Amino acid sequence: MKYLHTMIRVSDIDETLAFFDLLGLEEQKRYEVEAGRFTLVFLAAPGDEEAQVELTWNWPPEDGSEPEDYDGGRNFGHLAYAVDDIYETCRRLADGGITINRPPRDGHMAFVRTPDDISIELLQKGKALKPAEPWASMENIGEW
Amino acid sequence: MKYLHTMIRVSDIDETLAFFDLLGLEEQKRYEVEAGRFTLVFLAAPGDEEAQVELTWNWPPEDGSEPEDYDGGRNFGHLAYAVDDIYETCRRLADGGITINRPPRDGHMAFVRTPDDISIELLQKGKALKPAEPWASMENIGEW
Repeated sequence: MKYLHTMIRVSDIDETLAFFDLLGLEEQKRYEVEAGRFTLVFLAAPGDEEAQVELTWNWPPEDGSEPEDYDGGRNFGHLAYAVDDIYETCRRLADGGITINRPPRDGHMAFVRTPDDISIELLQKGKALKPAEPWASMENIGEW
Repeated sequence: MKYLHTMIRVSDIDETLAFFDLLGLEEQKRYEVEAGRFTLVFLAAPGDEEAQVELTWNWPPEDGSEPEDYDGGRNFGHLAYAVDDIYETCRRLADGGITINRPPRDGHMAFVRTPDDISIELLQKGKALKPAEPWASMENIGEW
């Protein structure tokens, strides 16, 4: 038995791919299913290609009606990744316009959210980094 | 960068552990945090211990009030696992009282749900098995 992926639904595939690109995941495969009007994109961290995230993007309704709203629920918590340098990852995300909801004040843990509010936990690989500004005095923003 | 886990919140830790035990995941580590009144349990498939599921169980409120309801949202889709024999896995789950929401009619794919309605996709490793009863003529039950 083997873990394959966690699937999340995305309302804007380009915006979501831009988020995961900033985070550092890379596209592994993509299926455009014209008949079902959806696109599946599988992403993974370089060097860890077998544990994937599957993005499901349902194309906008042909009749012009509003697409479904992908609200969040409490039974799902987050996806977690280990990163080589949590400050560098958070700097890259922040520079790309992503809110760091829980800054890595402790050099160990941070939280961000995808455009559809899927919570992503970032954990420093190995030992926590030494607390450093601007992170050490940065406040939480919103929930995660 | 490396995938670590997907975290889900569970309202009944024993019931959820029984579900994942039937599925075939094994406990890797557990933290009981008395101060925060929560328990974390990390599970993984044997032989694939690094890709984990983290269960967060918040203990019932001390004041006797109702615990939080862990409803589902649409932004999260499912967790997917490859299994060696999808019929055997589904038989084991069904014998344990788990509803097979999407039976493996095609010998390839099935869906079940955890007690908190987290959707789990099961995919047959390698080639699909030959369609076989009772699965081939079994109807879908509910959503997944």
